[in-house]
Amino acid sequence: MTVRFRVATRADVPAIIGLLDDDDISRSRQAVSGPVVSGPGVSGPVSEAADARRWQAFEAIDADPRNELIVADDDGVVVGTCQLTFTPSLSRAGAERMTIEAVRVATDRRGAGIGHAMMRWAIAQARARGCGMVQLTTDKRRVDAHRFYASLGFAASHEGMKIYL
Amino acid sequence: MTVRFRVATRADVPAIIGLLDDDDISRSRQAVSGPVVSGPGVSGPVSEAADARRWQAFEAIDADPRNELIVADDDGVVVGTCQLTFTPSLSRAGAERMTIEAVRVATDRRGAGIGHAMMRWAIAQARARGCGMVQLTTDKRRVDAHRFYASLGFAASHEGMKIYL
Repeated sequence: MTVRFRVATRADVPAIIGLLDDDDISRSRQAVSGPVVSGPGVSGPVSEAADARRWQAFEAIDADPRNELIVADDDGVVVGTCQLTFTPSLSRAGAERMTIEAVRVATDRRGAGIGHAMMRWAIAQARARGCGMVQLTTDKRRVDAHRFYASLGFAASHEGMKIYL
Repeated sequence: MTVRFRVATRADVPAIIGLLDDDDISRSRQAVSGPVVSGPGVSGPVSEAADARRWQAFEAIDADPRNELIVADDDGVVVGTCQLTFTPSLSRAGAERMTIEAVRVATDRRGAGIGHAMMRWAIAQARARGCGMVQLTTDKRRVDAHRFYASLGFAASHEGMKIYL
């Protein structure tokens, strides 16, 4: 495994967007058509407002000490991504909890252990920071993902409930 | 309903801790014995380290523009609480998502609509901020809570997976 994990830079954003959008379930939720960020390697119809919001979101994450956008970097190629959020809490004796969102591995690189390595790396980050818990939600239709997370030690102890506004 | 919802102050912290700890499931997870914060109205054995961490957590939440600790205030009495976290995201066209954690209503005030009103207020906060989604996880053992959130429009679309560190 030559893949390393690091905080994303501005230059990684188009590749991350590509990974986020290359997903049937995410695509079905996407309101705008086509890629929604401009940049190298991305072309096609773009909603300018959505594009601007996505760049603003990157800047917000980048500036926030409690949010980290992560990439799996294979010799300069982004082959995976996830976002880590550290939430301070009065529960559980004041320990932070880490929430993992937007986990993706490039379609043509799946099954090679990149996702497992990225999650183990993320959990190690949580331990190093003193978090009391790591949590995520995964769409009930993603049955392969449930097995994947269970193999990492996650327990499906909770219902994940959402309202789309 | 004379209850109003507002951001918690330092003076509310002991009452919030009381609500968080007055819960069978939370109690079963609590590593230390007894209340774990000092302050007015709270007595008994306290782990000093846990106490300090909880105050630090309050200060962290209070200073963070993406975290809000909320109380339901009935004429000066804290009768409910929840924590709102706003997470910037490149998914969903760059909209923030709101995560609700640590929802509690005082045992002797349940069934009076305080929880519903607090959740409706929280969802309105998310709309006003332009969030694309509101999410929470709820322990699979809390079957009453699932009905409660479903009645507010939440769909149990996801598995909520956790690792306690």
